[in-house]
Amino acid sequence: MANSRYEYVRSFERENILLPQSHIVIRVDGRGFHKFSDHYDFEKPNDEKALQVINEAAKQMMVTMPDIIMAYGDSDEYSFLLRKDCDLFERREFKLITTFASAFSAYYQHFWTKWIPGKPLDLERLPMFDARAVVYPNAENVMDYFRWRQVDCHINNLYNTTFWSLVLKGGMTTNEAENRLIGTLSADKNEILFKDFGINYNNIHDMYKKGTIYIREYTDFPLSKYLEDPTEAHLKRLMKRVKKSTIEQYHCDIIKDSFWTQRPYLLL
Amino acid sequence: MANSRYEYVRSFERENILLPQSHIVIRVDGRGFHKFSDHYDFEKPNDEKALQVINEAAKQMMVTMPDIIMAYGDSDEYSFLLRKDCDLFERREFKLITTFASAFSAYYQHFWTKWIPGKPLDLERLPMFDARAVVYPNAENVMDYFRWRQVDCHINNLYNTTFWSLVLKGGMTTNEAENRLIGTLSADKNEILFKDFGINYNNIHDMYKKGTIYIREYTDFPLSKYLEDPTEAHLKRLMKRVKKSTIEQYHCDIIKDSFWTQRPYLLL
Amino acid sequence: MANSRYEYVRSFERENILLPQSHIVIRVDGRGFHKFSDHYDFEKPNDEKALQVINEAAKQMMVTMPDIIMAYGDSDEYSFLLRKDCDLFERREFKLITTFASAFSAYYQHFWTKWIPGKPLDLERLPMFDARAVVYPNAENVMDYFRWRQVDCHINNLYNTTFWSLVLKGGMTTNEAENRLIGTLSADKNEILFKDFGINYNNIHDMYKKGTIYIREYTDFPLSKYLEDPTEAHLKRLMKRVKKSTIEQYHCDIIKDSFWTQRPYLLL
Amino acid sequence: MANSRYEYVRSFERENILLPQSHIVIRVDGRGFHKFSDHYDFEKPNDEKALQVINEAAKQMMVTMPDIIMAYGDSDEYSFLLRKDCDLFERREFKLITTFASAFSAYYQHFWTKWIPGKPLDLERLPMFDARAVVYPNAENVMDYFRWRQVDCHINNLYNTTFWSLVLKGGMTTNEAENRLIGTLSADKNEILFKDFGINYNNIHDMYKKGTIYIREYTDFPLSKYLEDPTEAHLKRLMKRVKKSTIEQYHCDIIKDSFWTQRPYLLL
Repeated sequence: MANSRYEYVRSFERENILLPQSHIVIRVDGRGFHKFSDHYDFEKPNDEKALQVINEAAKQMMVTMPDIIMAYGDSDEYSFLLRKDCDLFERREFKLITTFASAFSAYYQHFWTKWIPGKPLDLERLPMFDARAVVYPNAENVMDYFRWRQVDCHINNLYNTTFWSLVLKGGMTTNEAENRLIGTLSADKNEILFKDFGINYNNIHDMYKKGTIYIREYTDFPLSKYLEDPTEAHLKRLMKRVKKSTIEQYHCDIIKDSFWTQRPYLLL
Repeated sequence: MANSRYEYVRSFERENILLPQSHIVIRVDGRGFHKFSDHYDFEKPNDEKALQVINEAAKQMMVTMPDIIMAYGDSDEYSFLLRKDCDLFERREFKLITTFASAFSAYYQHFWTKWIPGKPLDLERLPMFDARAVVYPNAENVMDYFRWRQVDCHINNLYNTTFWSLVLKGGMTTNEAENRLIGTLSADKNEILFKDFGINYNNIHDMYKKGTIYIREYTDFPLSKYLEDPTEAHLKRLMKRVKKSTIEQYHCDIIKDSFWTQRPYLLL
Repeated sequence: MANSRYEYVRSFERENILLPQSHIVIRVDGRGFHKFSDHYDFEKPNDEKALQVINEAAKQMMVTMPDIIMAYGDSDEYSFLLRKDCDLFERREFKLITTFASAFSAYYQHFWTKWIPGKPLDLERLPMFDARAVVYPNAENVMDYFRWRQVDCHINNLYNTTFWSLVLKGGMTTNEAENRLIGTLSADKNEILFKDFGINYNNIHDMYKKGTIYIREYTDFPLSKYLEDPTEAHLKRLMKRVKKSTIEQYHCDIIKDSFWTQRPYLLL
Repeated sequence: MANSRYEYVRSFERENILLPQSHIVIRVDGRGFHKFSDHYDFEKPNDEKALQVINEAAKQMMVTMPDIIMAYGDSDEYSFLLRKDCDLFERREFKLITTFASAFSAYYQHFWTKWIPGKPLDLERLPMFDARAVVYPNAENVMDYFRWRQVDCHINNLYNTTFWSLVLKGGMTTNEAENRLIGTLSADKNEILFKDFGINYNNIHDMYKKGTIYIREYTDFPLSKYLEDPTEAHLKRLMKRVKKSTIEQYHCDIIKDSFWTQRPYLLL
């Protein structure tokens, strides 16, 4: 029985090849994690164990996919940076984003089951993630992308920390807390935290305030040598010699330039 | 701290809206399932339990997503048909395919853990699926799509059944079996099965030969009434009245017209 | 000198293949024709000669491209319908739309120069057209597309006819005429035309009210035979026999079904 | 009469926004110019007047579209470079490429009619051009794109010059000339030209050998100042002060770096 008679249906398939020699960022995002966190009774404003699960899932992505040079995540999302010259799945967008969504979900479920055995996952509320790819033509855009995510993390965490203080410690209803915060600036929230609840926001764990960064760090990269001739061609030559890389975790500032200038290979 | 300074990076994001009023097929496909089936020691040529896991995952997709009207799968792949007027995720392709890939992986892992507890999944070999969406403008294309998949299932299963008979019962090496089958037609393989191993291919389980079909069946659909005026407008009117649907499993022929003519609402 | 060293830049090129077996509509649209019509002193509200130029350009498109089965235009725009199974430029969108834009501009300039020799075209104000392709999965969408354009023609023409009557015959400034028409319905405009200027809108030339239609008409198409079995398969068989086609011009109603039911091959 | 009932057909329209902050190259290409050049009896291997027409059309594009910073063309094609931060038509690909195709055709026809009055254009053989846009993420890619086109110009012109010498001066048929050139390298063709026809290829007009370049030249750009700090930020600051630009024509080498290093603003 020949299949050729029906095979014409393949001609309706489409591919999208992401622009070559451009940075690719793939962001996975939890589906319905507001309800998910209620269902599994997450600690508020941040559930340390759940964050460890998502962090471990992100790290595992980097372990299995050498093309990922950096990851940044907080709450229920993670962004992955692929090298400019990466040819993973021939840069086919559909393959890339569905594989990332699938792999991330698989790792998350795996680590949850392993690390939070007291809360078995229900069929009706399994962890799922959608994904999208964004292409950035130059290094400045890429840095700004990650700055955008970290500023977002900060804004959300300050809000959530204040909100849940008002509710859990201040005895407000969630509606009352919401109304209390309408129109408040960062300074106002810091003051509520400090005056009403004795919380110095600066002392809160950096993982909550700044999110989590994984980078493929080239431990023997000769930074000073690079700075003598900070061109891409020179960087490429240097990278051919240093290959000892480890995956490192940080909760540091990635908005300031110093994070990036110390690791020029992230933007290669 | 305003985020607006970096927010420009969002303007690099793209959406693709799938053509309205067209049938959407989303196919999920196991990643590296050849190695996966080796790793977990699948029975050859077909592992009934593994098929039950993937079938149950597919059925669960239909339970949670009412827009799926039909599913067809065999081996490590499944195709889902969405209604022509479906507006799931506003037909945004990225959302659709990454959600399908993620959900399918989540369900597969869940059912595997539950049904095959004797073979715990290893972090290094978790089940993962990629996904793609294809748009078909008319009913004929959609039927041909599913015919294409079922013919493919048949061709592969006949090959695999013969191949593994030669290996497991005939004592050939996999190389010898491969060489033995080069250039053989369907009739030849049927004859090898029958003469050498006493296997009548027709008697093999339909799930292996024809794959698995799930449909959202409208049990009280007045087919005879529809046939009096077999137009789309009439069909739509009839469908407004009959809403009692159940998800039914079949292992039947979907190549012949009768499967489709009996259920005109599948192609609405 | 080998070119291979730089040829990699071709890998950045993209193609978009329009969905097979779907109707393609390509609409060309005059660029800056408001100023264009001022510059060349068009008669208001309709310049018959300019319309003849654009009509002739559209007709010439059909003469040279047999894949165009129908065209509809008014004012400074024209829409072309390609057969569902058309394979012109392998359905590559960029080739299609840029060729249509280029050819239409070329014909327009050619016919203008020939027919309106008294108004030579200036380099600073040459006729130009952009173009876009839209894909429609079924016949109903296609009919509605052309209905949409004809309704639009009617609305604009009634407005313009009334507006220019107020200005040219009623002595209003353009601002006064604009204000006079704010909030008026069709009935109001008809009344202004009739009471103030003795114009019965119904008597205005159909080319202005309904636009211009070109169709590739199969003069020996056996309509009655088709109606005995109005299926696509039958239509295709009938079309194989009748091939005597002429390009016909109409200014008729294409909103009512009758236009389409008499020419089922337009939607094949 | 409301148009809303049919207006849903607009939802089938698609836009493609070209990636921000990336260089855009739009290449227009003559349609069927082989036949076109035969029909109008072009001089072989190069028709100076026809090249002047296409050059003038290209220059006119730059006059009317300030976003074009550079153009390169030879034979029947022209490539236009848009600034990285160009927002022409909000970077909508369809608008861009159809407008370029239309405008270029319009200008070509206009200048032909004006400059080659002895050969009036025939309706059946009007000059038409298709167009495509390609996006390049960085300056290196852009330079390589134009190098690719100039190398191509050289290869074609050397071939054509030799081919037509063999035919017009050597008395070969076109078939014979084609066969004579099979497998020949550049050195071989140079030798044929010199030995058989006394032609020193180096002495041929640069317009034929290197094509035509138009650039928007900033005549008071302080290059030496820029070289003190050759960063993009500095370049942008310098460009804010110098705005006196002229459109200049060249037939020079654009493969060597010097063309580009002298005009860093081309790649801004």
